[in-house]
Amino acid sequence: MRAVDIIIRKRDGADLTAEEIDFLVKGIAGGEIPDYQIAAWAMAVVWRGMTVRETTRLTLAMAESGGQLDLGGWAPGAVDKHSTGGVGDKTTLVVGPVAAASGIPVVKMSGRGLGISGGTIDKLESIPGFRTGLSREEILRQVKEIGLVACTQTAELAPADGKLYALRDVTGTVPSLPLIASSVMSKKIASGARAIVLDVKAGSGAFMGTVAEAAVLAHWMVRIGNRAGRRTVALVSGMFQPLGFAVGNALEVREAVETLQGAGPPDFREHCLTIAGHMLHLGGRARNPRLGRALAGETLDGGSALAKFRALLRAQGGEERICENLSLLPAAPCRGILAAERSGYLAEAHAGKIGLASVRLGAGRAKKGDAIDPAVGIVLRAKVGDRIKEGDPLCEIHASSPESLSQAQDALRDAFIVKRSKVDPLPLFYRTIRG
Amino acid sequence: MRAVDIIIRKRDGADLTAEEIDFLVKGIAGGEIPDYQIAAWAMAVVWRGMTVRETTRLTLAMAESGGQLDLGGWAPGAVDKHSTGGVGDKTTLVVGPVAAASGIPVVKMSGRGLGISGGTIDKLESIPGFRTGLSREEILRQVKEIGLVACTQTAELAPADGKLYALRDVTGTVPSLPLIASSVMSKKIASGARAIVLDVKAGSGAFMGTVAEAAVLAHWMVRIGNRAGRRTVALVSGMFQPLGFAVGNALEVREAVETLQGAGPPDFREHCLTIAGHMLHLGGRARNPRLGRALAGETLDGGSALAKFRALLRAQGGEERICENLSLLPAAPCRGILAAERSGYLAEAHAGKIGLASVRLGAGRAKKGDAIDPAVGIVLRAKVGDRIKEGDPLCEIHASSPESLSQAQDALRDAFIVKRSKVDPLPLFYRTIRG
Repeated sequence: MRAVDIIIRKRDGADLTAEEIDFLVKGIAGGEIPDYQIAAWAMAVVWRGMTVRETTRLTLAMAESGGQLDLGGWAPGAVDKHSTGGVGDKTTLVVGPVAAASGIPVVKMSGRGLGISGGTIDKLESIPGFRTGLSREEILRQVKEIGLVACTQTAELAPADGKLYALRDVTGTVPSLPLIASSVMSKKIASGARAIVLDVKAGSGAFMGTVAEAAVLAHWMVRIGNRAGRRTVALVSGMFQPLGFAVGNALEVREAVETLQGAGPPDFREHCLTIAGHMLHLGGRARNPRLGRALAGETLDGGSALAKFRALLRAQGGEERICENLSLLPAAPCRGILAAERSGYLAEAHAGKIGLASVRLGAGRAKKGDAIDPAVGIVLRAKVGDRIKEGDPLCEIHASSPESLSQAQDALRDAFIVKRSKVDPLPLFYRTIRG
Repeated sequence: MRAVDIIIRKRDGADLTAEEIDFLVKGIAGGEIPDYQIAAWAMAVVWRGMTVRETTRLTLAMAESGGQLDLGGWAPGAVDKHSTGGVGDKTTLVVGPVAAASGIPVVKMSGRGLGISGGTIDKLESIPGFRTGLSREEILRQVKEIGLVACTQTAELAPADGKLYALRDVTGTVPSLPLIASSVMSKKIASGARAIVLDVKAGSGAFMGTVAEAAVLAHWMVRIGNRAGRRTVALVSGMFQPLGFAVGNALEVREAVETLQGAGPPDFREHCLTIAGHMLHLGGRARNPRLGRALAGETLDGGSALAKFRALLRAQGGEERICENLSLLPAAPCRGILAAERSGYLAEAHAGKIGLASVRLGAGRAKKGDAIDPAVGIVLRAKVGDRIKEGDPLCEIHASSPESLSQAQDALRDAFIVKRSKVDPLPLFYRTIRG
């Protein structure tokens, strides 16, 4: 078998065989296939696409390309959760503790933020002392002891995906449904959970701009997950405005803790409980997602989710006292507000523009490896549909300098639209996709 | 400017700007753009195509990517000639001397054969002593002195094309009209002639299987050549059966010498005179190609083309006496014939199958760098349309061993079809394409 013949077959629109896909993935992981052949093949896939059968094979081959986490003996009922990324998406910080406190073990491996998409690891690292790099043994011991782990992906998981993703990033071959879906799902499968809840974002602050596009991606991932023997469900959720109020690492941790304390923004709380409800259902703790949501609400309101979060901080070296004293989190020296220039109803709080302003404040990265500032960010004071009076703050800006603050104020003016006539709030979820 | 953005624009179907194309070609030649980005871009071009404007820019940028031969002060009226490759295509060996003897300087840089396409360099190297690797200074001195040079392409000509071609070969990105046309034309333009005659082959023994496909390629190359300021004409010629009788290196040299002596196969002689006629027309020696053909015929029949060939051999160290004594050429130890199994008319002498049989005899290469045997090959005894009697030889096989001979006989049986009813001879040319 030769790589060039596989490229030619895909270029000409053929479906690749399982053997061809396995050959490619082994060659990518082992370094036998040079990068230029992988890049040409990836572009041919962007062009010609892949069937669900091909994509499932690619996913499994990449999942099997390195060590896999076997949770079987340690946390057999574990349920994983994955978000495709958005602005203000601190969901993991709440649903992890809620699910774990409800008896569903969670090993959540996350990434760092890139562009306007925040990353759970960056958020956790804004907590003084929190360690995100755990060994395989630490992960397994901790999930057995407290039922909850939140860490970076271990290097040996799905190494073929790591290589392919790095190459796609620099060869214009990122936007391909089969490649996106297999990249996400290969890591989920290698992470060992037998059930997966996918939170697929749609909107200006997400990779998929429309609900229709997000639904297609969600369908692909659910089909791959189910074919690979993982019970998988996907929720298509809105990312037209930020989730909750806070955007920025320590600011989002603060909001997550407030939510675990029983407060927090109503939309964010509801979002977390819905996701957690599906996790409890897939994990066998509830007969259906609605009952799962109810159980999750009880767990949250009873305080055991906050206790689980505290156990997580303790296990991974994070400052536990933030659970009572949020002022222990890093704070930005300069704060200011953006005031509404007219009265009416908030019609838009553009997630993409707010995310970009947050990156420019220093909360995110323009490119991999950039340093971030954990303290800076933006906190909304209103959400779409809210009534606004002229002069009311639309958001609060947390900056590292007066110049940065003033630049963000200028940039953010464009992100908000206030209309005279009444505006409906945005839905949290648009679709639920099961097998 | 970043390579990844150029890849993305082509992937999304945009036309690239001159600046983007120049950036790419400089990066290819200089090594600043990694192979994986070039490969992804090439696949995007196979997918999305390029306009004639883009392709002309690519061609010129590649032509300018290294040293160019400036024939201005040495052979200002030089005319170049290029064939897209075929089976039994020894045209250069005759039209070079004919054009040069008619007062048109010719610097013909050629390649080696690959697959079923023979290469002029391999043919010339079957002449004892003939040197094909000349320095730039040797080329310029020789074209000034005798008006004729036949050598390998010097390494510094169009180096970006050399790199891109090598990469396309292993990434499944060969079949793209703009990439094929720009590869040929960049080398022609860097070679310095102000006028170019293209012989674009169509048929089973050619890269383009049909006349329609060959005509499209011919149109592209003519438009690029004319836009680049080279008077360019293309002839679409048949490669359904081999050109002339001989297929194999020394066998083709023998046939070319016989043709220069005034004999040779009638179809091959006519093919050469037509091509030469166009060269004489473009070079200003004849008012139209028909008058050019007549002048070429006089040059050939008067013996001055053979004298020019002798001068070429002398200048490049080849055994001159082959012009009188063809037995000085290498000869194969084993010969045999393939006899017709029925009487009738020859309906097919499949160029592709005959070319493949010749490669297997050792006359050609399956892959670059393979050794070849100059002596072996196949000599047709009949052409399509000829009357055949049962038992007549259809072709003569020149092999290095009895086993090889017998294998070729088996393989060739399938290449010939004899029919009861009358069959017309095949046309030599199908189209003439000018600007």
